[in-house]
This record gives sequence, structure tokens and C-alpha cells, in this order.
Amino acid sequence: MAATTTAKPANRIAVCIIGDEVLGGKTKDTNSHFVAKLCFAAGLSLKRVVVIPDDEADIVRTVRELSHDYSHVITSGGIGPTHDDITYDAIAKAFNADLVRHEETITRMVRIGQARTPDVPFELNPGRIRMAMLPSPSKVSFPCSDLWVPVVSTGEKQNVHIFPGVPRLFQQLVTRFVEDTIVPNTPGLKKFIRKQVATIKMESEIMATLTKWQEKADADGKGTRVGSYPKYTPVKMKDALTGEEQDARVVISVVGTDDAEIDIVLRGIQSELGAFEVAEEEAKL
Amino acid sequence: MAATTTAKPANRIAVCIIGDEVLGGKTKDTNSHFVAKLCFAAGLSLKRVVVIPDDEADIVRTVRELSHDYSHVITSGGIGPTHDDITYDAIAKAFNADLVRHEETITRMVRIGQARTPDVPFELNPGRIRMAMLPSPSKVSFPCSDLWVPVVSTGEKQNVHIFPGVPRLFQQLVTRFVEDTIVPNTPGLKKFIRKQVATIKMESEIMATLTKWQEKADADGKGTRVGSYPKYTPVKMKDALTGEEQDARVVISVVGTDDAEIDIVLRGIQSELGAFEVAEEEAKL
Repeated sequence: MAATTTAKPANRIAVCIIGDEVLGGKTKDTNSHFVAKLCFAAGLSLKRVVVIPDDEADIVRTVRELSHDYSHVITSGGIGPTHDDITYDAIAKAFNADLVRHEETITRMVRIGQARTPDVPFELNPGRIRMAMLPSPSKVSFPCSDLWVPVVSTGEKQNVHIFPGVPRLFQQLVTRFVEDTIVPNTPGLKKFIRKQVATIKMESEIMATLTKWQEKADADGKGTRVGSYPKYTPVKMKDALTGEEQDARVVISVVGTDDAEIDIVLRGIQSELGAFEVAEEEAKL
Repeated sequence: MAATTTAKPANRIAVCIIGDEVLGGKTKDTNSHFVAKLCFAAGLSLKRVVVIPDDEADIVRTVRELSHDYSHVITSGGIGPTHDDITYDAIAKAFNADLVRHEETITRMVRIGQARTPDVPFELNPGRIRMAMLPSPSKVSFPCSDLWVPVVSTGEKQNVHIFPGVPRLFQQLVTRFVEDTIVPNTPGLKKFIRKQVATIKMESEIMATLTKWQEKADADGKGTRVGSYPKYTPVKMKDALTGEEQDARVVISVVGTDDAEIDIVLRGIQSELGAFEVAEEEAKL
């Protein structure tokens, strides 16, 4: 069911990380950064990341708001079997859905679980059954054939997609789901391109140049964005053309979907500042 | 000016990361995890992290909501000199404040900047002046004597605190600010304690035990929380008592402020599950 776009752009993604362990500093969230890179590569616009506790009222309020404000909401965490895993339950409450035992999930869980430890009889205990009690109505999909974990899409717009928090599972499932479901249903996507230059000058000295080129790009209306990121103490960077190591204090990036315009803006900035070109790899330093 | 607490608890912290570079996957946000650990150690409850773009309307809406819903809002990013640094401006708009040149900031910027590069005359260019145009009314503080960067506290409740995004600066400033300003003005803080055990059992098998002990803790009303975090494939962990290496599939943590109760709950879980104790260092694996 492809959504027909009307007023709001169909390309606004939000991520909702659910978990006391992240807010308590015990666990570092890596899932949102993974989605950020995935969206960037696909041409999807990640517009918001929210991290909230395992708290029913907070989950209810947050997923309602995000579902209303964004085209797709990707949640992570809280779908395990224990008492603090309340994501299915809370999201069902948020959209007045029920929790219904999903037989295909049970079947896959038993089959894949049993295959993993063939010597031990697979016990369908209450904890495991709990993981198959899914919000209904919803659309349930299994993006990876070797994983039993379902991706549940629910809410009035069926745009809240529920993923596990465990990074290895999250990454596999979300990659397939974005590529197989979100991308094909978002017409007109163009991949983002990011090109970068670096300079030994300080941000306060290059402001006028960057502003000028951003205004030029704005006038074209193609959404090209000029950004600058200071390195407080200069770092060594390799000039992409000469291979020479140079000091850099600011990395300037030009991001957009129009390669030709990006090149014009980048070359303009580069020549005005005497900046040097950097490869993506170096720019991450 | 210590806030007098009425209905809402005074200990609810939110972090707002502002920056296209994080949402675009170029930069990994490390500041929110830093605050999470800082809050945990101080007994402050981090309740929400939001990452938003360098977009005026989004910043305005978000800081208004967070300022209303939380005791303190810590923002990070967007206070540099270039065109995409719009945090001061947008937060001023959010609270109908003006942007006013702040002379103490200018004075410190010139003094500290000049001392850093004594050979080069320090030029007070428009980019630098822009970094001293601060929301007013506000409370401006300088938590670190060797940094000129101000911390601006603004909003109706003066509870929106504006920090730079550069991690080295952010970390220094926010540490001092939390310890010197937020902690002393939040009465009744008790440091959080986290103790952990690990087990080779799977989450689905230990669910009943964890639920029982969480219910026991809930009945005491001291806010002790039992959490569990699966390792999808078992990892080696050292038993804190025997030093022996064991396989662990789930780490169970008990978090709270009452050491005696934490010990009771932890020992209860440990003996029911035959779990082994792990030191904080190991548990991060």
C-alpha cells in the first residue's frame, strides 16, 4: 500500500530509541547513527532522533507525536521477554490496538530456534510467547529470512515500525526494511552526496564566504546545504589531490542531491579560502 | 536563585542535540552519552535525548516543549560563527528574548584568544562578535576559567542551558555546570548505584524471576529498577568473586539509590538463577 503524498513531504524519518539503559549511561546507542548513515545513503531525510525511558506514558505520547509529524518512525528496543520490555504494549495503547498472539511469529520462532540448538527441545515458554504478542491491527513483516524477529508496522498511518534494540538484529532488519519497503514507497528519492574541503583558517574567518555560497545555493532551490565543523585544535589531513598532509581547523561540507551544483559550490568555497580537498575517510577524523 | 519544587519533581533532565551533521550520519553524537553518565553519577535523572536539525522552527518548538516538560534542558551545538549556527537566535525566538551583545563574553574572548596566539593580533571580526550575541534576558555563566565560551541559561524558567557542540568544550563546561549549578539547586539528590549479575540462561527463561523481584522492589517504593540486557551470542565474563571466566547471555542490572535494597534484590535474583556477579568494567562488554 503506497502512501499517496499530499501536503507533507513523504520523506521525513524519525527514530525513537526506547531504553533506560541508554539514558542511564550504561549503554551507548549505536542504532540511531546506523540509521542516519542508512538514510543518508538512500536519500531519506532523518529529521529527529528521540531517546526515551521504558515508561508507558512516555512511549505512548512520543510515538503518537512522531507518527503524526513524520513519514516513518523507526523504534528500537523494548521487545524482549522481560518485565521492562513494554514497547509492543505501550505502542498498542498509543493507537488503541490490541495485543494478539501472532501465529506466524510463533512458527518461525520455533523453527529457527530449534534449528539453532537441535540437541535441546525448544520450549515455548511464557517469555517467548510474550515476544509474539503483537499490536493488531498492524502489518507484520520478516525482512530477513534467517531471523524470526518480526517488524511490526502499526498506528493510524501504519508508519510506526518496531525493531529490536540488540544492534546486530536491529542493523540487519532495518537495512532490509528501509531498502525493501520504505525506499520503494517513497517516490522521487535521490541519493545524497557529501563533498568536503578543509582549511587551516578558523570558522570566524570563513563565515562570510560560507554565507555567500549558502545564499547562492538557496537561490537555486535544490536543497544544497553548506556546513562547517571546527576542529578545536588542528588535525592533520591528507589533501585528496596531492596526498600531502596539511593542518585542518575547519572541515566544510557541501551536501545535496545535485552533483553539478555541489561541485560548483565546493569549488567556489575552495578557491576563495585556499582550502584543500579531503576524502570522506579523512574527514571523519 | 534556587527553584522551589511544587508538583513536578525537580530532577528531570533533557538533552537537545542540534545539528544536521549528526542526523546526516557524518558525526556520531558523543555528548548525550557523556551527559547520561554524568547525570547517573550525580543522581540526576536523564529522561529524554532529542537530536534535531539546524532548523529554526524545529529548534523553537523543541526547546519550548522541553523547557515546559523537564527541570533542565541542556542543548549542544549551533553556537559557532557561521550561517548554519542558529541556536542562540532560534532559542531567543522561542522565548521572545532579544539577541544582545554580551560585553563580558567579548572581553574574555579577546583576552583568552590573544593569550593563545600572542604573536598574532586578535581580530574581533563579525564572526567572533556573532558568537557573543546572546539571548537576553538570560543568566550567563563561565563555568571554566580557562574558556571564554559562555553558558547561557534562558527561557521562562531559565532552565534551557546552551552549550557548544565541540565535545572537548562541551564536556568541560557541562561537567562544571552540572556539579556547580544544577546539583546544588536540586535538593534531596542521592547518587545512583548500579550492581550487576550475569547468567548463561536466556531472557525468556529468567523472566518470571525478574518480574517477581521488580514487583518486590516496587512495593517498597524506593525506585529500585531491575533491567536485563541480552547478549545475542554468549560473551566471556569474569566472575567478580572467583575471577573465573564464564559465558554470559544476559546481564541483569539493579539500579537505585538504596544500597541495602539493591543488595537484597541482586542477591535474590542471583541465587534463584545461579547467576554470577560481574564488575562494572566487565558488564560493558
